[in-house]
Amino acid sequence: MTYCVGMLLDAGLVFLSDSRTNAGVDHINTFRKMSVFERPGERVLVLMGAGNLAITQTLVNLLRERLAAEGPNLYSVPNLFEAARHIGDCLREVHARDAEALNEFGIEFNPSFILGGQILGDIPRLFQIYSAGNFIEATRDTPYFQIGEAKYGKPIIDRVIRPETRLDEAAKCALISMDSTIRSNLSVGLPLDLLIMKTNALRVESHTRIDADNAYFDMIRSRWGESLREAFHALPSPEWVPSAD
Amino acid sequence: MTYCVGMLLDAGLVFLSDSRTNAGVDHINTFRKMSVFERPGERVLVLMGAGNLAITQTLVNLLRERLAAEGPNLYSVPNLFEAARHIGDCLREVHARDAEALNEFGIEFNPSFILGGQILGDIPRLFQIYSAGNFIEATRDTPYFQIGEAKYGKPIIDRVIRPETRLDEAAKCALISMDSTIRSNLSVGLPLDLLIMKTNALRVESHTRIDADNAYFDMIRSRWGESLREAFHALPSPEWVPSAD
Repeated sequence: MTYCVGMLLDAGLVFLSDSRTNAGVDHINTFRKMSVFERPGERVLVLMGAGNLAITQTLVNLLRERLAAEGPNLYSVPNLFEAARHIGDCLREVHARDAEALNEFGIEFNPSFILGGQILGDIPRLFQIYSAGNFIEATRDTPYFQIGEAKYGKPIIDRVIRPETRLDEAAKCALISMDSTIRSNLSVGLPLDLLIMKTNALRVESHTRIDADNAYFDMIRSRWGESLREAFHALPSPEWVPSAD
Repeated sequence: MTYCVGMLLDAGLVFLSDSRTNAGVDHINTFRKMSVFERPGERVLVLMGAGNLAITQTLVNLLRERLAAEGPNLYSVPNLFEAARHIGDCLREVHARDAEALNEFGIEFNPSFILGGQILGDIPRLFQIYSAGNFIEATRDTPYFQIGEAKYGKPIIDRVIRPETRLDEAAKCALISMDSTIRSNLSVGLPLDLLIMKTNALRVESHTRIDADNAYFDMIRSRWGESLREAFHALPSPEWVPSAD
Protein backbone atom coordinates (compact mmCIF):
# COMPACT_ATOMS: atom_id res chain seq x y z
CA MET A 1 0.00 0.00 0.00
CA THR A 2 0.82 3.65 0.02
CA TYR A 3 -0.11 6.78 1.85
CA CYS A 4 0.03 10.18 0.14
CA VAL A 5 -1.50 13.47 1.15
CA GLY A 6 -1.66 16.80 -0.66
CA MET A 7 -2.80 20.06 0.96
CA LEU A 8 -3.90 23.27 -0.75
CA LEU A 9 -3.36 26.28 1.51
CA ASP A 10 -3.47 30.00 0.98
CA ALA A 11 0.28 30.05 1.48
CA GLY A 12 1.01 27.21 -0.92
CA LEU A 13 0.94 23.46 -1.37
CA VAL A 14 2.28 20.63 0.78
CA PHE A 15 2.82 17.11 -0.57
CA LEU A 16 3.88 14.07 1.41
CA SER A 17 4.26 10.48 0.22
CA ASP A 18 5.73 7.31 1.61
CA SER A 19 7.80 4.93 -0.48
CA ARG A 20 6.78 1.44 0.44
CA THR A 21 5.40 -0.97 -2.11
CA ASN A 22 4.54 -4.53 -1.42
CA ALA A 23 3.31 -7.59 -3.15
CA GLY A 24 2.57 -9.55 -0.01
CA VAL A 25 4.42 -8.95 3.22
CA ASP A 26 7.42 -10.94 2.02
CA HIS A 27 8.08 -8.69 -0.95
CA ILE A 28 8.51 -5.14 0.24
CA ASN A 29 10.38 -2.51 -1.73
CA THR A 30 11.15 1.19 -1.80
CA PHE A 31 9.95 3.31 -4.71
CA ARG A 32 9.31 7.00 -4.96
CA LYS A 33 5.66 7.78 -5.44
CA MET A 34 6.13 11.47 -6.09
CA SER A 35 7.00 12.87 -9.54
CA VAL A 36 7.83 16.53 -10.10
CA PHE A 37 7.44 18.41 -13.39
CA GLU A 38 9.10 21.79 -12.86
CA ARG A 39 10.05 24.75 -15.02
CA PRO A 40 11.19 27.28 -12.43
CA GLY A 41 9.39 30.59 -12.79
CA GLU A 42 6.78 29.12 -15.11
CA ARG A 43 5.21 25.97 -13.61
CA VAL A 44 5.48 23.28 -11.01
CA LEU A 45 3.34 20.14 -11.13
CA VAL A 46 3.56 17.40 -8.54
CA LEU A 47 1.98 13.99 -9.09
CA MET A 48 1.64 11.28 -6.44
CA GLY A 49 0.27 7.83 -7.22
CA ALA A 50 -1.22 4.96 -5.23
CA GLY A 51 -2.23 1.49 -6.33
CA ASN A 52 -0.53 -1.09 -8.52
CA LEU A 53 3.04 0.13 -9.08
CA ALA A 54 3.28 -1.19 -12.64
CA ILE A 55 0.27 0.95 -13.53
CA THR A 56 1.38 4.14 -11.76
CA GLN A 57 4.91 3.86 -13.16
CA THR A 58 3.59 3.26 -16.67
CA LEU A 59 1.47 6.38 -16.40
CA VAL A 60 4.44 8.49 -15.28
CA ASN A 61 6.59 7.09 -18.09
CA LEU A 62 3.85 7.88 -20.60
CA LEU A 63 3.58 11.44 -19.25
CA ARG A 64 7.35 11.89 -19.60
CA GLU A 65 7.34 10.43 -23.11
CA ARG A 66 4.67 12.95 -24.12
CA LEU A 67 6.86 15.84 -22.99
CA ALA A 68 8.98 15.30 -26.10
CA ALA A 69 6.10 14.49 -28.47
CA GLU A 70 3.50 16.43 -30.46
CA GLY A 71 0.20 17.22 -28.72
CA PRO A 72 -0.62 18.29 -25.17
CA ASN A 73 1.80 17.50 -22.40
CA LEU A 74 2.49 18.61 -18.85
CA TYR A 75 4.87 21.38 -20.02
CA SER A 76 2.42 22.71 -22.61
CA VAL A 77 -0.98 22.59 -20.90
CA PRO A 78 -2.18 26.11 -19.99
CA ASN A 79 -3.54 25.29 -16.51
CA LEU A 80 -3.92 22.57 -13.89
CA PHE A 81 -7.39 21.59 -15.07
CA GLU A 82 -5.98 20.75 -18.51
CA ALA A 83 -3.11 18.94 -16.80
CA ALA A 84 -5.60 16.77 -14.91
CA ARG A 85 -7.45 16.06 -18.17
CA HIS A 86 -4.20 15.13 -19.89
CA ILE A 87 -3.27 12.77 -17.07
CA GLY A 88 -6.79 11.29 -17.19
CA ASP A 89 -6.40 10.72 -20.93
CA CYS A 90 -3.04 9.03 -20.50
CA LEU A 91 -4.46 6.89 -17.69
CA ARG A 92 -7.26 5.77 -20.03
CA GLU A 93 -4.59 4.78 -22.56
CA VAL A 94 -2.91 2.64 -19.92
CA HIS A 95 -6.30 1.15 -19.05
CA ALA A 96 -7.08 0.37 -22.69
CA ARG A 97 -3.76 -1.37 -23.08
CA ASP A 98 -3.39 -3.24 -19.78
CA ALA A 99 -6.64 -3.60 -17.82
CA GLU A 100 -7.94 -6.72 -19.55
CA ALA A 101 -4.63 -8.55 -19.30
CA LEU A 102 -4.32 -7.63 -15.63
CA ASN A 103 -7.88 -8.71 -15.00
CA GLU A 104 -7.05 -12.20 -16.26
CA PHE A 105 -4.58 -12.43 -13.38
CA GLY A 106 -7.10 -11.08 -10.89
CA ILE A 107 -5.36 -7.71 -10.69
CA GLU A 108 -7.69 -4.78 -10.39
CA PHE A 109 -7.05 -1.57 -12.32
CA ASN A 110 -7.20 0.63 -9.24
CA PRO A 111 -4.64 3.45 -9.35
CA SER A 112 -5.42 6.87 -7.92
CA PHE A 113 -3.44 10.07 -8.05
CA ILE A 114 -3.05 13.46 -6.44
CA LEU A 115 -2.01 16.26 -8.77
CA GLY A 116 -1.17 19.71 -7.50
CA GLY A 117 0.82 22.72 -8.52
CA GLN A 118 0.69 26.08 -10.17
CA ILE A 119 1.13 27.34 -13.73
CA LEU A 120 1.93 31.00 -14.49
CA GLY A 121 -1.31 32.95 -14.92
CA ASP A 122 -3.39 30.54 -12.79
CA ILE A 123 -3.83 30.02 -9.05
CA PRO A 124 -2.39 26.98 -7.22
CA ARG A 125 -4.74 24.02 -7.55
CA LEU A 126 -5.07 20.47 -6.26
CA PHE A 127 -6.83 17.51 -7.88
CA GLN A 128 -7.56 13.90 -7.09
CA ILE A 129 -7.63 11.68 -10.18
CA TYR A 130 -9.49 8.37 -10.11
CA SER A 131 -8.83 5.10 -11.93
CA ALA A 132 -11.38 5.99 -14.60
CA GLY A 133 -9.46 9.14 -15.49
CA ASN A 134 -12.11 11.41 -13.96
CA PHE A 135 -11.12 13.82 -11.21
CA ILE A 136 -12.23 16.25 -8.52
CA GLU A 137 -10.68 19.50 -7.33
CA ALA A 138 -9.97 20.61 -3.77
CA THR A 139 -11.94 23.58 -2.45
CA ARG A 140 -11.73 25.79 0.64
CA ASP A 141 -14.17 23.42 2.37
CA THR A 142 -11.99 20.39 1.68
CA PRO A 143 -8.49 21.70 1.12
CA TYR A 144 -6.71 18.34 1.05
CA PHE A 145 -6.73 14.94 -0.62
CA GLN A 146 -5.40 11.60 0.53
CA ILE A 147 -4.80 8.44 -1.48
CA GLY A 148 -3.90 4.92 -0.42
CA GLU A 149 -4.11 3.96 3.24
CA ALA A 150 -5.90 7.19 4.18
CA LYS A 151 -8.08 6.45 7.17
CA TYR A 152 -5.62 6.19 10.06
CA GLY A 153 -4.23 9.63 9.34
CA LYS A 154 -7.47 11.44 8.50
CA PRO A 155 -8.74 12.53 11.95
CA ILE A 156 -5.76 14.81 12.70
CA ILE A 157 -6.00 16.47 9.27
CA ASP A 158 -9.75 17.01 9.66
CA ARG A 159 -9.12 18.73 12.95
CA VAL A 160 -6.15 20.92 12.05
CA ILE A 161 -6.00 21.85 8.39
CA ARG A 162 -7.76 25.02 7.21
CA PRO A 163 -6.90 27.11 4.13
CA GLU A 164 -5.23 29.62 6.48
CA THR A 165 -2.91 27.01 8.04
CA ARG A 166 0.76 27.97 7.66
CA LEU A 167 3.01 25.85 5.46
CA ASP A 168 5.23 24.68 8.30
CA GLU A 169 2.21 23.75 10.43
CA ALA A 170 0.68 21.91 7.48
CA ALA A 171 3.92 20.00 6.93
CA LYS A 172 3.92 19.07 10.62
CA CYS A 173 0.30 17.89 10.34
CA ALA A 174 1.09 15.81 7.25
CA LEU A 175 4.00 14.17 9.08
CA ILE A 176 1.86 13.40 12.15
CA SER A 177 -0.80 11.95 9.87
CA MET A 178 1.90 9.81 8.22
CA ASP A 179 3.24 8.71 11.61
CA SER A 180 -0.23 7.49 12.68
CA THR A 181 -0.51 5.58 9.41
CA ILE A 182 2.92 3.97 9.64
CA ARG A 183 2.26 2.87 13.22
CA SER A 184 -1.01 1.19 12.36
CA ASN A 185 -0.16 -0.23 8.95
CA LEU A 186 2.87 -2.30 8.05
CA SER A 187 2.51 -1.58 4.33
CA VAL A 188 3.30 2.13 4.63
CA GLY A 189 6.91 3.00 5.39
CA LEU A 190 9.96 5.25 5.26
CA PRO A 191 11.58 7.02 3.54
CA LEU A 192 9.15 9.86 2.89
CA ASP A 193 9.12 12.60 0.29
CA LEU A 194 8.01 15.99 1.61
CA LEU A 195 7.64 18.75 -0.96
CA ILE A 196 6.66 22.36 -0.28
CA MET A 197 5.62 24.94 -2.86
CA LYS A 198 4.84 28.56 -2.03
CA THR A 199 1.96 30.30 -3.79
CA ASN A 200 3.20 32.26 -6.81
CA ALA A 201 6.80 31.13 -6.35
CA LEU A 202 6.43 28.81 -9.36
CA ARG A 203 9.26 26.65 -8.15
CA VAL A 204 9.75 23.94 -5.53
CA GLU A 205 10.50 25.63 -2.20
CA SER A 206 11.85 22.54 -0.52
CA HIS A 207 11.95 18.85 -1.26
CA THR A 208 13.10 16.71 1.62
CA ARG A 209 13.75 13.01 1.72
CA ILE A 210 12.93 11.86 5.24
CA ASP A 211 14.44 8.59 6.39
CA ALA A 212 14.97 6.89 9.72
CA ASP A 213 17.82 9.32 10.54
CA ASN A 214 15.71 12.47 10.20
CA ALA A 215 15.80 14.16 13.61
CA TYR A 216 12.57 16.11 13.09
CA PHE A 217 10.46 13.10 12.11
CA ASP A 218 12.07 11.16 14.92
CA MET A 219 10.92 13.88 17.34
CA ILE A 220 7.38 13.72 15.86
CA ARG A 221 7.32 9.96 16.27
CA SER A 222 8.26 10.01 19.92
CA ARG A 223 6.59 13.21 21.07
CA TRP A 224 3.26 12.94 19.26
CA GLY A 225 2.43 9.65 20.92
CA GLU A 226 3.39 11.17 24.25
CA SER A 227 1.27 14.28 23.59
CA LEU A 228 -1.71 12.12 22.65
CA ARG A 229 -1.37 10.16 25.86
CA GLU A 230 -1.11 13.36 27.89
CA ALA A 231 -4.17 14.84 26.17
CA PHE A 232 -5.95 11.56 26.82
CA HIS A 233 -5.13 11.54 30.52
CA ALA A 234 -6.10 15.20 30.89
CA LEU A 235 -9.73 14.42 29.97
CA PRO A 236 -11.96 13.15 32.78
CA SER A 237 -13.12 9.54 32.68
CA PRO A 238 -16.82 8.63 32.66
CA GLU A 239 -18.03 8.67 36.25
CA TRP A 240 -20.52 5.87 35.81
CA VAL A 241 -17.72 3.43 34.99
CA PRO A 242 -15.89 1.92 37.97
CA SER A 243 -12.23 2.98 38.03
CA ALA A 244 -11.03 -0.15 39.82
CA ASP A 245 -12.30 -3.14 41.69
CA MET B 1 -21.19 0.49 8.15
CA THR B 2 -20.55 -0.12 11.78
CA TYR B 3 -17.86 0.46 14.32
CA CYS B 4 -17.48 -1.84 17.31
CA VAL B 5 -14.56 -2.27 19.68
CA GLY B 6 -13.98 -4.76 22.49
CA MET B 7 -11.15 -4.50 25.02
CA LEU B 8 -9.80 -7.20 27.33
CA LEU B 9 -8.17 -5.69 30.40
CA ASP B 10 -6.94 -7.08 33.67
CA ALA B 11 -9.81 -5.28 35.38
CA GLY B 12 -12.48 -6.51 33.00
CA LEU B 13 -14.00 -6.05 29.56
CA VAL B 14 -15.21 -2.95 27.73
CA PHE B 15 -17.54 -3.14 24.72
CA LEU B 16 -18.67 -0.25 22.56
CA SER B 17 -20.83 -0.33 19.42
CA ASP B 18 -22.61 2.23 17.30
CA SER B 19 -26.09 1.64 15.93
CA ARG B 20 -26.13 2.93 12.40
CA THR B 21 -26.97 0.69 9.50
CA ASN B 22 -27.25 1.86 5.97
CA ALA B 23 -28.12 0.58 2.56
CA GLY B 24 -26.88 3.60 0.67
CA VAL B 25 -26.82 7.05 2.25
CA ASP B 26 -30.55 7.53 1.69
CA HIS B 27 -31.51 4.55 3.81
CA ILE B 28 -30.05 4.92 7.25
CA ASN B 29 -31.49 3.23 10.30
CA THR B 30 -30.77 2.57 13.93
CA PHE B 31 -30.28 -1.00 15.14
CA ARG B 32 -28.50 -2.34 18.15
CA LYS B 33 -25.39 -4.27 17.24
CA MET B 34 -24.70 -5.57 20.74
CA SER B 35 -26.38 -8.68 22.16
CA VAL B 36 -25.98 -9.78 25.75
CA PHE B 37 -26.37 -13.32 27.09
CA GLU B 38 -26.26 -13.07 30.87
CA ARG B 39 -26.87 -15.37 33.80
CA PRO B 40 -25.78 -13.23 36.72
CA GLY B 41 -23.21 -14.98 38.91
CA GLU B 42 -22.61 -17.68 36.30
CA ARG B 43 -21.84 -16.16 32.90
CA VAL B 44 -21.93 -13.05 30.77
CA LEU B 45 -21.38 -13.18 27.00
CA VAL B 46 -21.46 -10.12 24.80
CA LEU B 47 -21.64 -10.38 21.02
CA MET B 48 -21.22 -7.46 18.60
CA GLY B 49 -21.71 -7.83 14.86
CA ALA B 50 -20.68 -5.90 11.76
CA GLY B 51 -21.59 -6.43 8.13
CA ASN B 52 -24.90 -7.19 6.43
CA LEU B 53 -27.63 -6.69 9.04
CA ALA B 54 -29.84 -9.50 7.76
CA ILE B 55 -26.95 -11.90 8.30
CA THR B 56 -25.93 -10.64 11.75
CA GLN B 57 -29.55 -10.58 12.95
CA THR B 58 -30.18 -14.07 11.62
CA LEU B 59 -27.17 -15.33 13.52
CA VAL B 60 -28.36 -13.76 16.77
CA ASN B 61 -31.86 -15.18 16.27
CA LEU B 62 -30.39 -18.61 15.64
CA LEU B 63 -28.27 -18.35 18.79
CA ARG B 64 -31.37 -17.40 20.80
CA GLU B 65 -33.39 -20.26 19.27
CA ARG B 66 -30.70 -22.71 20.30
CA LEU B 67 -30.95 -21.60 23.94
CA ALA B 68 -34.22 -23.51 24.16
CA ALA B 69 -33.18 -26.48 22.03
CA GLU B 70 -31.17 -29.66 22.52
CA GLY B 71 -27.42 -29.47 21.91
CA PRO B 72 -24.82 -26.86 22.73
CA ASN B 73 -25.91 -23.28 23.27
CA LEU B 74 -24.54 -20.08 24.80
CA TYR B 75 -25.98 -20.95 28.21
CA SER B 76 -24.60 -24.48 28.21
CA VAL B 77 -21.09 -24.15 26.72
CA PRO B 78 -18.43 -24.60 29.42
CA ASN B 79 -16.11 -21.76 28.32
CA LEU B 80 -15.67 -18.88 25.88
CA PHE B 81 -13.68 -20.97 23.42
CA GLU B 82 -16.64 -23.35 23.06
CA ALA B 83 -18.94 -20.34 22.79
CA ALA B 84 -16.87 -19.03 19.87
CA ARG B 85 -17.01 -22.46 18.23
CA HIS B 86 -20.77 -22.62 18.71
CA ILE B 87 -21.19 -19.17 17.15
CA GLY B 88 -18.89 -20.19 14.29
CA ASP B 89 -21.01 -23.31 13.72
CA CYS B 90 -24.23 -21.29 13.68
CA LEU B 91 -22.65 -18.78 11.31
CA ARG B 92 -21.75 -21.63 8.96
CA GLU B 93 -25.40 -22.70 9.06
CA VAL B 94 -26.45 -19.21 8.03
CA HIS B 95 -23.83 -19.32 5.29
CA ALA B 96 -25.03 -22.69 4.03
CA ARG B 97 -28.59 -21.44 3.87
CA ASP B 98 -28.16 -17.88 2.54
CA ALA B 99 -24.76 -17.22 0.95
CA GLU B 100 -25.59 -18.50 -2.52
CA ALA B 101 -28.90 -16.63 -2.72
CA LEU B 102 -27.22 -13.42 -1.53
CA ASN B 103 -24.42 -13.90 -4.01
CA GLU B 104 -26.93 -13.90 -6.86
CA PHE B 105 -27.82 -10.38 -5.82
CA GLY B 106 -24.19 -9.34 -5.57
CA ILE B 107 -24.29 -9.33 -1.75
CA GLU B 108 -21.15 -10.61 -0.11
CA PHE B 109 -21.32 -12.87 2.93
CA ASN B 110 -19.07 -10.66 5.04
CA PRO B 111 -20.18 -10.50 8.68
CA SER B 112 -17.67 -10.29 11.49
CA PHE B 113 -18.17 -10.48 15.23
CA ILE B 114 -16.55 -9.69 18.52
CA LEU B 115 -17.38 -12.06 21.36
CA GLY B 116 -16.26 -11.43 24.90
CA GLY B 117 -17.22 -12.35 28.39
CA GLN B 118 -16.58 -14.70 31.26
CA ILE B 119 -18.01 -18.03 32.35
CA LEU B 120 -17.65 -19.29 35.92
CA GLY B 121 -14.43 -21.31 36.26
CA ASP B 122 -12.70 -19.60 33.33
CA ILE B 123 -10.93 -16.26 32.91
CA PRO B 124 -12.46 -13.37 30.92
CA ARG B 125 -11.75 -13.82 27.21
CA LEU B 126 -12.23 -11.91 23.97
CA PHE B 127 -12.57 -13.33 20.44
CA GLN B 128 -12.95 -12.02 16.94
CA ILE B 129 -15.04 -14.30 14.72
CA TYR B 130 -14.70 -14.12 10.94
CA SER B 131 -17.23 -14.74 8.18
CA ALA B 132 -15.94 -18.27 7.70
CA GLY B 133 -16.74 -19.13 11.31
CA ASN B 134 -13.08 -19.25 12.29
CA PHE B 135 -11.82 -17.00 15.05
CA ILE B 136 -8.85 -15.55 16.93
CA GLU B 137 -8.42 -14.69 20.59
CA ALA B 138 -7.07 -11.48 22.12
CA THR B 139 -3.80 -11.71 24.04
CA ARG B 140 -1.83 -9.38 26.30
CA ASP B 141 0.06 -8.14 23.21
CA THR B 142 -3.15 -7.24 21.39
CA PRO B 143 -5.79 -6.81 24.06
CA TYR B 144 -8.52 -5.43 21.80
CA PHE B 145 -10.48 -6.13 18.62
CA GLN B 146 -12.30 -3.81 16.27
CA ILE B 147 -14.83 -4.66 13.57
CA GLY B 148 -16.39 -2.52 10.86
CA GLU B 149 -14.99 0.93 10.14
CA ALA B 150 -11.93 0.36 12.32
CA LYS B 151 -9.11 2.45 10.92
CA TYR B 152 -9.99 6.02 11.94
CA GLY B 153 -10.19 5.05 15.59
CA LYS B 154 -7.23 2.67 15.75
CA PRO B 155 -4.30 5.05 16.41
CA ILE B 156 -5.59 6.27 19.79
CA ILE B 157 -6.26 2.70 20.96
CA ASP B 158 -2.80 1.56 19.84
CA ARG B 159 -1.28 4.35 21.89
CA VAL B 160 -3.31 4.08 25.06
CA ILE B 161 -4.67 0.60 25.73
CA ARG B 162 -2.57 -1.84 27.73
CA PRO B 163 -3.83 -4.80 29.78
CA GLU B 164 -3.26 -2.67 32.90
CA THR B 165 -5.47 0.19 31.69
CA ARG B 166 -8.31 0.96 34.12
CA LEU B 167 -11.89 0.29 33.04
CA ASP B 168 -12.95 3.94 33.14
CA GLU B 169 -9.88 4.97 31.14
CA ALA B 170 -10.54 2.20 28.62
CA ALA B 171 -14.16 3.34 28.27
CA LYS B 172 -12.91 6.89 27.66
CA CYS B 173 -10.48 5.61 25.03
CA ALA B 174 -13.22 3.60 23.30
CA LEU B 175 -15.44 6.69 23.19
CA ILE B 176 -12.64 8.87 21.77
CA SER B 177 -11.96 6.19 19.18
CA MET B 178 -15.68 6.19 18.32
CA ASP B 179 -15.73 10.00 18.11
CA SER B 180 -12.85 10.01 15.60
CA THR B 181 -14.71 7.42 13.55
CA ILE B 182 -18.04 9.25 13.60
CA ARG B 183 -16.36 12.50 12.56
CA SER B 184 -14.63 10.95 9.58
CA ASN B 185 -17.33 8.52 8.45
CA LEU B 186 -20.98 9.29 7.86
CA SER B 187 -22.01 5.66 8.09
CA VAL B 188 -21.18 5.31 11.79
CA GLY B 189 -23.54 7.09 14.17
CA LEU B 190 -25.26 7.54 17.52
CA PRO B 191 -26.70 6.15 19.71
CA LEU B 192 -23.93 4.01 21.16
CA ASP B 193 -24.00 1.00 23.45
CA LEU B 194 -21.29 0.98 26.10
CA LEU B 195 -21.06 -2.12 28.25
CA ILE B 196 -18.63 -2.72 31.10
CA MET B 197 -17.93 -6.04 32.81
CA LYS B 198 -15.60 -6.46 35.79
CA THR B 199 -13.33 -9.49 36.00
CA ASN B 200 -14.93 -12.22 38.13
CA ALA B 201 -18.16 -10.26 38.69
CA LEU B 202 -19.98 -12.56 36.25
CA ARG B 203 -22.60 -9.91 35.60
CA VAL B 204 -22.86 -6.73 33.56
CA GLU B 205 -21.43 -3.85 35.60
CA SER B 206 -22.96 -1.10 33.51
CA HIS B 207 -24.71 -0.87 30.18
CA THR B 208 -25.20 2.68 28.95
CA ARG B 209 -27.07 3.86 25.90
CA ILE B 210 -25.30 7.02 24.74
CA ASP B 211 -27.26 9.37 22.53
CA ALA B 212 -26.87 13.00 21.45
CA ASP B 213 -27.98 14.19 24.91
CA ASN B 214 -25.23 12.37 26.82
CA ALA B 215 -23.23 15.06 28.59
CA TYR B 216 -20.08 12.96 28.91
CA PHE B 217 -19.86 12.03 25.24
CA ASP B 218 -20.68 15.61 24.35
CA MET B 219 -17.70 16.72 26.46
CA ILE B 220 -15.47 14.16 24.70
CA ARG B 221 -16.61 15.40 21.32
CA SER B 222 -15.79 19.03 21.99
CA ARG B 223 -12.76 18.69 24.24
CA TRP B 224 -10.88 15.93 22.46
CA GLY B 225 -10.68 17.92 19.24
CA GLU B 226 -9.46 20.90 21.26
CA SER B 227 -6.88 18.77 23.09
CA LEU B 228 -5.61 17.37 19.82
CA ARG B 229 -5.20 20.85 18.40
CA GLU B 230 -3.39 22.00 21.54
CA ALA B 231 -1.07 18.99 21.42
CA PHE B 232 -0.51 19.73 17.75
CA HIS B 233 0.42 23.35 18.33
CA ALA B 234 2.71 22.46 21.24
CA LEU B 235 5.01 20.50 18.92
CA PRO B 236 7.61 22.51 17.00
CA SER B 237 7.22 22.87 13.25
CA PRO B 238 9.93 21.72 10.84
CA GLU B 239 12.52 24.48 10.58
CA TRP B 240 13.35 23.85 6.97
CA VAL B 241 9.81 24.71 5.89
CA PRO B 242 9.05 28.44 5.51
CA SER B 243 6.46 29.58 8.06
CA ALA B 244 5.07 32.35 5.84
CA ASP B 245 5.95 34.37 2.77
